[in-house]
Order: sequence, then C-alpha cells, then structure tokens
Amino acid sequence: MIDQVEENFRGMWRELLPVGRYEATGGYRRHAWTTADGECRAWFREQALKRGLTYEVDRNGNQWAWYGDPAAGDAIVTGSHLDSVPDGGAYDGPLGVVSAFAALDALRERGTATGGRPLAIVNFGDEEGARFGVACVGSRLMAGVLEPGHARALRDQDGVLLGDAMERAGHDPFAIGRDDDRLGRIGAYVELHVEQGRNLGDAPVGVASAIWPHGRWRFDFHGEANHAGTTRLEDRRDPMLAYAATVLNAREQARLAGALATFGKISVEPNGTNAIASRVTAWLDSRAADSDTLDMLVKEIIEQSGAEVTRESFTPVVEFDRPLRDRLAARLGGVPVLPTGAGHDAGILASAVPTAMLFVRNPTGVSHSPAEHAEEADCLAGVTALASVLEDLL
Amino acid sequence: MIDQVEENFRGMWRELLPVGRYEATGGYRRHAWTTADGECRAWFREQALKRGLTYEVDRNGNQWAWYGDPAAGDAIVTGSHLDSVPDGGAYDGPLGVVSAFAALDALRERGTATGGRPLAIVNFGDEEGARFGVACVGSRLMAGVLEPGHARALRDQDGVLLGDAMERAGHDPFAIGRDDDRLGRIGAYVELHVEQGRNLGDAPVGVASAIWPHGRWRFDFHGEANHAGTTRLEDRRDPMLAYAATVLNAREQARLAGALATFGKISVEPNGTNAIASRVTAWLDSRAADSDTLDMLVKEIIEQSGAEVTRESFTPVVEFDRPLRDRLAARLGGVPVLPTGAGHDAGILASAVPTAMLFVRNPTGVSHSPAEHAEEADCLAGVTALASVLEDLL
Repeated sequence: MIDQVEENFRGMWRELLPVGRYEATGGYRRHAWTTADGECRAWFREQALKRGLTYEVDRNGNQWAWYGDPAAGDAIVTGSHLDSVPDGGAYDGPLGVVSAFAALDALRERGTATGGRPLAIVNFGDEEGARFGVACVGSRLMAGVLEPGHARALRDQDGVLLGDAMERAGHDPFAIGRDDDRLGRIGAYVELHVEQGRNLGDAPVGVASAIWPHGRWRFDFHGEANHAGTTRLEDRRDPMLAYAATVLNAREQARLAGALATFGKISVEPNGTNAIASRVTAWLDSRAADSDTLDMLVKEIIEQSGAEVTRESFTPVVEFDRPLRDRLAARLGGVPVLPTGAGHDAGILASAVPTAMLFVRNPTGVSHSPAEHAEEADCLAGVTALASVLEDLL
Repeated sequence: MIDQVEENFRGMWRELLPVGRYEATGGYRRHAWTTADGECRAWFREQALKRGLTYEVDRNGNQWAWYGDPAAGDAIVTGSHLDSVPDGGAYDGPLGVVSAFAALDALRERGTATGGRPLAIVNFGDEEGARFGVACVGSRLMAGVLEPGHARALRDQDGVLLGDAMERAGHDPFAIGRDDDRLGRIGAYVELHVEQGRNLGDAPVGVASAIWPHGRWRFDFHGEANHAGTTRLEDRRDPMLAYAATVLNAREQARLAGALATFGKISVEPNGTNAIASRVTAWLDSRAADSDTLDMLVKEIIEQSGAEVTRESFTPVVEFDRPLRDRLAARLGGVPVLPTGAGHDAGILASAVPTAMLFVRNPTGVSHSPAEHAEEADCLAGVTALASVLEDLL
C-alpha cells in the first residue's frame, strides 16, 4: 500500500480514538445523538470536506460523502457506523468508515478512473440502538422498515424521546422516513466490518454470506416479595430460582442446537438484599443459522422457563446478494465466505439494493467490549481488499 | 379491651396508612430521612403531645415519648420503627409503635399505677437500612456498635451522604454517637413486632427467644464482555452462568441445612441485551439457627460459586434476656416462644439492656411486601398482651 494512504489511515485512527472513550472502562460510549456522537459526526464531515467530497446529511440523519455526482445514480456505496454499544470497542463501526476513506485515498493515489459510477462513503446513524433500544435506526428509516412515528416515540433510559434528542442535535425529526430517491441511486452497498467471533482463522479478510436470523425476547418471571430472613423455603415463590434454571437451560439447549442463547440483561424488583424478589425480568438474545433451528430453540427455552414471554424484536435470515458476493470473493482470490450472527446496516439494505460485506480478522473474537481488537496489518489488508473490490465495481 | 382504646388504635392506623404509600405497588417507601419518613415522625410527635407525654429526639435521631420522669432511670421502654423497606408492608415497624401508644392508653384508662418506673415509647430511626444499606442505624449508634464517622459517610443510591440527608431533615449529624446516659436510664426494652414467617400457628401472640445469626455477602462473578450474537459458546466467559448455578446451589444447600439462603439483589455490567456480561454482582442473604450451621452453609455456597466474595455484614446470634422472656411468657400464659430470622432494634439493644420481643401472628407469612397483613383481632390481642406485660413490669 502507498505510504501516504497508510499514514492517513493511522491519522484517522488517532483522531477518533479519544472521542467518546470512557476512562474508567477504556470502552466507548458513542450513543446516538449525544455529544460524543456529534464529535464523531463532525470528524466525518471534516474528512469529507478535506478530501473535496460532496458532503450531505440525508433526511434520516445518515452522513454521506460523495466522490462523483450524487445524482448520477448506480452509485457504489461503502461505509458503516460510528456509534457504539455501552463500553464498546474501537473497531465495531469505525473500522468500516475509516477503511472507506482510506480505500478512496488509495484509489485516488493510483489514479483509478471511476468508470462514471459515483462512489459514496456513508455513516449510518444509530446502528447499535444502545440508547433507544432499536438497532440500525438510520438504515431502517431509509429502507422504510421502521415507521417514523414509532421511531420518534422511542425513549432512552432517562425518558428522552428519540425525536427530541434528534432535534436537540440539530436534525429535524419530522423529516425522517423512507428515502426511495436515495435508495434508487444506489447500485451496490459494500460494508467492511471487524469480524466478531474468531471465525476467520488464518485469513485477514473474508466475505459475508449471510446474517443469522436473530431476535430478543423479554422473560417476566413472577413471584412474591417476601422477607429473606423469615420466609420458610417451602413458603417462597422466588422468581430468581426459575430465572437461574432458565439461564442454564438456555445455554444447554443452544449447545445442543449449535446455536446461540444469551441472558445479558436483567432487572429485579424490589432488588433488595433481604427481600425475595417479586419479579425478575430478563432478556434472551438468541440466534441460529436458520429460522427453524432458532424457532425450536427459543420454544424449548420458553416452555421450560414458566415465564411470561414477549418477543421484542426479530430479524429473519439475510442472504447477501449472491452475484455480488461471488464477485467480491473472486476478486479477493478465494478468501473465506462465512455467515455472522450480528446484525448490520448491510442486513437492512440487503432488502433494497445488492449488498455485500467484508470482514477483517478479529484475533480474540472479542467484540462489544473495550478489549475488542484487530491487528493493524489485518486492518490494512482490509483497506487493500476494499479498494480492490471498489475498483472492480466502479 | 376498652372501646376508646380500640377506637384510638384504629384512628392511628387510619392516619398512618396513606403516609409514604406508593400507589403503583400498594407498598410503602418510608426510607430514612425522606419526606415520607418526616411525615411519620411528625405523626409520632403529635401522638406524644396529644397524650401529654414528654417528647424528645435523642442525639441519634430516635424519637421518644415519656410517661413519667425521663431522668428517673430504670425505665420500661417499648416501641419499634416507622421506616420501611422499598415497597414494604404496613405492619413491619408501625405495628409496634401504634401498639405501644395503644397499650399506654389502655393502662391509663384502667388507671394502672406505674410503680414509679417511667414508661417510654420509642421510634428508632432507619431500622430497615433501605436507603443507606446498614440496618438499625438509630439503635446501633445509640448502643455504640456503629461508628459515627462511618455512619455519616454512608451513601444512598443517588450518592447522598447519610450525614447530609440527616442535616437536611433538621438533625445535626455531628451529634450522633454512643449514648450511655440514655442506655443507663433504660431498665428493660420490649418490642412488639408482626411475626414474619407464619410460625405462630394458632396463637395470635408469641414471645421471641432469639434472633438467628445472619449476614450478607457480596458475590462478584467476573467474566468477559463480548458480543452475544457472534461469540461461540466455547469462547465465552459468561459470569451469568456461574451466577445461575450459584443461585440454585444456594437454595439446595440451604434446604439440606434447614437454613435460609437468598439472592434477591443483582447488578450486571454492561447489562445489555446483546452483550455477554462482563461482571455479575449479587448479594447473598443467609441465616441459620446457629453460627456453625450458617458458617458451613455459606462456605459451601462460596466454594461452589467461583466468585470473589466479600462479607458485608454479619450479626451473631442474639439470645434475648432469659428472665425477662420467661416473665413475659408466664404473664401471657403459655404463649409460643420462638426464634426469628429477622434483625430488629431489639437485637441491637439486647447487648446493652434486658430486652424482649412480642410477635403478632402473620396469617400468610408475607412480610417486606405490600401483601403483608395481620388480622385486626390479632393486632388487638397484641395490644392487650403488651399492656399486660408493661403493667407487670412497671
């Protein structure tokens, strides 16, 4: 790779690394429409302007930087997101945006003609859903799979409406909604992302085949509050016991099914040391390679639990565009082609435009954590691969 | 019982029932030094003044109402507390205070001479420890078993210091501490309390023999935050699994030991639906009839857990004053004499003065819950019993 491109790449990382980093954990808290998110967005705008790209914010708050005529149509779009989960890592999201700018730099350095197709770099807003509970808000709104009124009415844990948070950050919440004009101008979307499960083995880069179907279910375990120091065991209705049995059963059933099941979030009432809980609410995240496996797994977990269960979200399997994915894999010379359990904006866009993903190796498999890491050499291999497939497509 | 006494008793309940009641749950939130607590305290003062009693607040914020000369010494003291756990019931605490006033009314109605011993009614502050995490703060400070500097530095969940909360409520936090003068003037303390475990059977009233040794232990289960959708089961370090196994093991070990073990409070980091937890912190409340059983039980639970465990509090067994307890039981004609697993101000005072407790039947065994209940007939039997033992002691 050309030295200047590498230097730009490292410079972009240096600028982004301190933004929204929480000292106590070393993780990132770049939640949608917060100050930290605003700093990330200002950084994106600056990158666009200093490269002489056409900068714009679409009606849903997603940021775009265009090389070539935005109105020409059949554009090749690449990018990802800059927001994070609570105490997330540095790479999930930003690697795709930084790599997009670096890949464009590489193409321009080597004087690649675009063949008339415009190239756009995108930062989709609110991908993680960390603040308002719904993931991929920016891309969902654009694709018309999230109703604007519903989005505006989402609240964060302090009760702030998404619509109000948007407005305070300077974006009109009544402009949001399906953006057919913009979708119609996209010929293909390619998102580069750090791989999140140690699945690439010896390969620094891979191509995504599919996103596993996945969903979240709320389990309400009902019991009866009582004094922990005086209530005989046989008189108790302690929902913590049913919760504990469900956690262990979910793990075992997931193992048997070759799938994933996780309880990572819990809320207990009254949550007092000397009080038997009256209610335990816990959220199951479950994913599997196909819908039948997932359905069966979740059904088994629910039946054993005795809880009152509500499905809060569900995303069916996403198969990425076969011709595009094959073209990328061929261009990159036989890299691994693999599915992922994680949702992405690419998964949303796949329903509207030909979409593909590149993965960069994650040596530890750790993600959504301050410990998330990718080797610089692998990241640079990712930039090279992205530049190569963009060159092929343009 | 004399009609007027019953009417006063019902009147006192009617006045107290709305104070600090949380409509959504029907439970009480009368936490130390809050507005609701202040209303309870104003009610106590009013009860004292309208009966012509000598009202005072001691240096630790406990309220006293004296019938007879407070300085005479060898006083008989009765009472309890008015604060509550989060969403607690109406009886835990207030029943002892209301019954104390009603018993005094009964003694005065029937013209019982006091034999020269003064009678005091007390409302101990912050018995439940719901706000600052330490139970029986008022009685502990008085007895010198809680260091004043340590008490002032306790914080509630909003970070407010106990010292500051006291001061805002109009009490000097630098006045608190061991009160030997006051302790020296107490001849005996008798606390009436609702029973909390359905242990009285057919008897409306019983006498306490002892308080089980009890304590709380913090369990920190350490793991590694990671993406719930991409991390292979075999690559996970999910502390929720160890927590769940510990909850079930604690219950089983407690059953085998004929003791109690409860996990009712939990805190998870980062507590995200799609994140494997990095840390689960949970609190074990455990109690047994004797210290050896409790030690062995907690040791077994800790060893299996793999957690980092910190003992946050421990109260050794309390045996109530044998002559006093036998005198009460004889006076009441063979009522049940039984231990309890719950801590009380009486347990604190027992180390300093002859102390006893009366229990009023709890038909469901439910306590620390909005559903806590005692039948009015049983409560009135409690007043009669309390009046009878006071008459005997005075």
